[in-house]
Amino acid sequence: MHAYRTHTCAQLSAGDVGQTVRLSGWVHRKRDHGGVLFVDLRDHYGLVQIVADSDSDALKVLEGVRAESVVTIDGVVEARAPEAVNPNLATGAIEVRAKVVTILSAAAELPMPVAGEQEYPEDVRLRYRFLDLRRETLHANIVTRTKIIRDMRRRMEDEGFTEYSTPILTASSPEGARDFLVPSRIHPGKFYALPQAPQQYKQLLMVAGFDRYFQIAPCFRDEDPRADRLPGEFYQLDLEMSFVTQEDVWNTMEPVIAGVFETFAEDKPVTPAGSFPRIPYSEAMLKYGSDKPDLRNPIEITDVTEHFHGSGFGIFASLVEGGSVIRAIPAPGAGAGSRKFFDEMNNWARGEGYSGLGYINIKDGVPGGPIAKNHGEEATAKLIAALGLGPNDGVFFAAGKESVAAKLAGLARTRAAEQLDLIDKDRFALCWIVDFPFYEWDEDEKKVEFAHNPFSMPQGGMEALETRDPLSLKAYQYDMVCNGFEIASGSIRNQSPETMVKAFELVGLSKADVEERFGGLYRAFQYGAPPHGGMAAGVDRIVMLLCGAQNLREITLFPMNQKAEDLLMGAPSPAMIKQLRELHVRVVEPQKG
Amino acid sequence: MHAYRTHTCAQLSAGDVGQTVRLSGWVHRKRDHGGVLFVDLRDHYGLVQIVADSDSDALKVLEGVRAESVVTIDGVVEARAPEAVNPNLATGAIEVRAKVVTILSAAAELPMPVAGEQEYPEDVRLRYRFLDLRRETLHANIVTRTKIIRDMRRRMEDEGFTEYSTPILTASSPEGARDFLVPSRIHPGKFYALPQAPQQYKQLLMVAGFDRYFQIAPCFRDEDPRADRLPGEFYQLDLEMSFVTQEDVWNTMEPVIAGVFETFAEDKPVTPAGSFPRIPYSEAMLKYGSDKPDLRNPIEITDVTEHFHGSGFGIFASLVEGGSVIRAIPAPGAGAGSRKFFDEMNNWARGEGYSGLGYINIKDGVPGGPIAKNHGEEATAKLIAALGLGPNDGVFFAAGKESVAAKLAGLARTRAAEQLDLIDKDRFALCWIVDFPFYEWDEDEKKVEFAHNPFSMPQGGMEALETRDPLSLKAYQYDMVCNGFEIASGSIRNQSPETMVKAFELVGLSKADVEERFGGLYRAFQYGAPPHGGMAAGVDRIVMLLCGAQNLREITLFPMNQKAEDLLMGAPSPAMIKQLRELHVRVVEPQKG
Repeated sequence: MHAYRTHTCAQLSAGDVGQTVRLSGWVHRKRDHGGVLFVDLRDHYGLVQIVADSDSDALKVLEGVRAESVVTIDGVVEARAPEAVNPNLATGAIEVRAKVVTILSAAAELPMPVAGEQEYPEDVRLRYRFLDLRRETLHANIVTRTKIIRDMRRRMEDEGFTEYSTPILTASSPEGARDFLVPSRIHPGKFYALPQAPQQYKQLLMVAGFDRYFQIAPCFRDEDPRADRLPGEFYQLDLEMSFVTQEDVWNTMEPVIAGVFETFAEDKPVTPAGSFPRIPYSEAMLKYGSDKPDLRNPIEITDVTEHFHGSGFGIFASLVEGGSVIRAIPAPGAGAGSRKFFDEMNNWARGEGYSGLGYINIKDGVPGGPIAKNHGEEATAKLIAALGLGPNDGVFFAAGKESVAAKLAGLARTRAAEQLDLIDKDRFALCWIVDFPFYEWDEDEKKVEFAHNPFSMPQGGMEALETRDPLSLKAYQYDMVCNGFEIASGSIRNQSPETMVKAFELVGLSKADVEERFGGLYRAFQYGAPPHGGMAAGVDRIVMLLCGAQNLREITLFPMNQKAEDLLMGAPSPAMIKQLRELHVRVVEPQKG
Repeated sequence: MHAYRTHTCAQLSAGDVGQTVRLSGWVHRKRDHGGVLFVDLRDHYGLVQIVADSDSDALKVLEGVRAESVVTIDGVVEARAPEAVNPNLATGAIEVRAKVVTILSAAAELPMPVAGEQEYPEDVRLRYRFLDLRRETLHANIVTRTKIIRDMRRRMEDEGFTEYSTPILTASSPEGARDFLVPSRIHPGKFYALPQAPQQYKQLLMVAGFDRYFQIAPCFRDEDPRADRLPGEFYQLDLEMSFVTQEDVWNTMEPVIAGVFETFAEDKPVTPAGSFPRIPYSEAMLKYGSDKPDLRNPIEITDVTEHFHGSGFGIFASLVEGGSVIRAIPAPGAGAGSRKFFDEMNNWARGEGYSGLGYINIKDGVPGGPIAKNHGEEATAKLIAALGLGPNDGVFFAAGKESVAAKLAGLARTRAAEQLDLIDKDRFALCWIVDFPFYEWDEDEKKVEFAHNPFSMPQGGMEALETRDPLSLKAYQYDMVCNGFEIASGSIRNQSPETMVKAFELVGLSKADVEERFGGLYRAFQYGAPPHGGMAAGVDRIVMLLCGAQNLREITLFPMNQKAEDLLMGAPSPAMIKQLRELHVRVVEPQKG
């Protein structure tokens, strides 16, 4: 017989009755039923019920150990009495009568319970992560995470991609967030950086002719804690393809991402591959007030600026004269309810720092509220007809400079839908946002800046860079959005060294700057670079959506806390003087004051 | 028609003749045949021959671009003349007559050629790695590497393992080599470390109940350059299992590793799973003079100390009296050759700093050489019979303190086999070395030290630690060896906190030291830790063996050079003052002098 187990805790069923077995696992729960002791024995695979007879040696041993101790049970499989059968448990038809119990590892008093999954303070959960990870939901989430990643890999391979690992000790890349630095021992005063993303390496792979690359890639950004990002490291499904247009990337990745979602969505509907809406950025900002629209929300925003232009309705007309826009946010069915909803929305908008949300509430076909009143019956009817509103709908109005009105309208759209319970939570609505602006105006620096990825190809290429207003240029740049979250981002890259130099010139950087900052890539583009593009999908975010988790720590094995500390392993920690001397660095304590 | 290609460069065959196609790729080679230009167009998938007619526009464009430029060819597939068919090329039956050629990316003058794979200086190859990676052998090695890793993953999953990624920003671990450190921005004066291996995390995963873990794990050691290790990062197939004995680990991993080797060995024989020799460390040191024996080498060493004990043969007898041992290394068939071989072996041993290698050379059944002479006919005959030597064999003798004699015998065994061409290079001989010593004597520190992994379980457990001579203890510790290289190492772990404390006590570390250095793990062992064990296999080494490469850089995508520099990306590099200030460190230049 094996030293520890003949079966796992999920393997025994009615067919095994009468067998002598050996099981090992954790004491999950103990229940004393009048001298007879029932123990749920747990391992990775499941639970099995152990029975220890009164006055048996087995009972004495089991009585003496705490929950979460590890034990080996030698016993005999018995059928449970019909009324004791548990149909929710794989092993629910049987129990194992313990003959001999061996303690493999006795547990001390627990700092937090495992069975039952009671809420527990985060610092205790992280410090005792090895206990936390035994809990049913977290344990299952971690396994699901692995399964999702495995499924991603399989689908990428099926699409002809090959996985290549890119270096983790690499050069500081000045394009994005803050780097983690690693002092070099051999080169005093020099530092490696951990990659924020394998962007340059994956482009170099295309230049090296590898055609279709992907990687489940660890990425590192030394950013301040944010609710939607863990400190330190995160994972991307990173990919790149040669000789493609952006449509090729979309057509390739829709089946991969939709497939992953369908596999793990537990029968919730998923937007099918081949039918992801492709929404231009400008349209998204208009219709949803966001470049991350939640398409489960049926509300669509309409621009009604023209309607109010010279309308005589005081406030809106004069705002429009001054260059403002007016956006209408329908609130289906809200007119049937109380005015309170409308007033609360207005108050909320003011609380957020906006000037407020005007509204019309239609009750049984009669428009109400100050705007309807001032606007006049005929104009109001015309507006309602244009917006296609029903006899008991409402509508809000967001006014202001275009970017402000769009943002307020987007927030109001989300809030109204939540309040009116219009969002079908049980589905995954996927879409592409495309045609992002290539440049944007940096108000602080008073200059043109890259809106997103400086490595992207501007639509129209060199000619557009040379002849058009930079702020009017679009990029071959796209995001994938699910339920209001950006889950992937990508672009067709600018692989022409001349176009690259020109694109940087417009944000005030010289050719020498490009060579210095992106030397490897810039050099590579001189020696035969194929057109290429790709994207990176956020693995953690996708896992979180599919697990229905509310926090990244619930789908991460050993996360750091929000202060970027690993409470389990005690990182970060002071270094030894000898180590620092070898690395040619000295600690400079921050100045008090 | 697609913007860039209707087919890859490996897809066209005789069945496509007459089709109009579009192809994109790199200009691999150009050959001018009296006005007609032949171009090999290359992509990731293969080569295809392009023909450009004299005086055509296509010819003019192709004549004007350098090799390695990226072009798109619109043309018509034609059958090659029978005498021009190339059976070694997938597309060898056809060629594409170019109608229109578009230059996608013109190559500048190349710093190194791609076609032909001429030898080129390492620094040029690394600086222009994107060109180097286009070369046939390196490109193929990188793809094979990926396939090997994919095969490992699949086999591990088939064995019931689940892949979990462990943190890369973690705590400094004082057990092994030098850590790479990462200064914390949020915690002045504190540092993260990159993991030398996920040892503690994988053990914590077992304590958390995950049962079977594996990971293709990036590992980091800041070691000085060595021929057999690249600076910086390397990859391990890391795994751990709960409720297992060491036999379980061996029986699980033999099919995985043998399977991977069989898949990529290109029909070279591989030791079959289930029949890996399990050789105790002490036996390996005796029979092969090494704990990394090359079992393709048929020579086996024998201890002949007893034979010389009181034998009257001057030198050996007195050495034996003084506590030395004598090891015999047969040299099959060498006696038939010249004495020069024996004398050269002896000279080589002296050159290595040993006192020399005595020998007997048997020619047609007659033993020759000084040892045979001095030892006497009868004793020599007895020795030859005991060693089972044939009428034209030779034998060397290594004498000295046991560790010295074993090492010399091992080196002589390898050298003799190489010189006599006894090693069958075309197979993979796998074995386990088991029962490693738990402790060893540290001659510098004059104290007992861990021989290998301090986390291993000593055979005999607590009782052995308490009652036996530490230097006599064996560990549940094992290596897997292939063709003389250690390709994996592992152990059953010590999961008892009391035994752990005792094991460290014997090397002079207190319970407080254990808590400070391995706090996470030590804490975890208090709350129900299953018996567990595992191993880690060197992915890079395995890929190198299977690719038949002589250098790790030939199987690595973007390696650093031996000075730990990434010549392509320019790492490491100076940091900005602002970055260092944020990280609370200052560079201390090494003192001149």
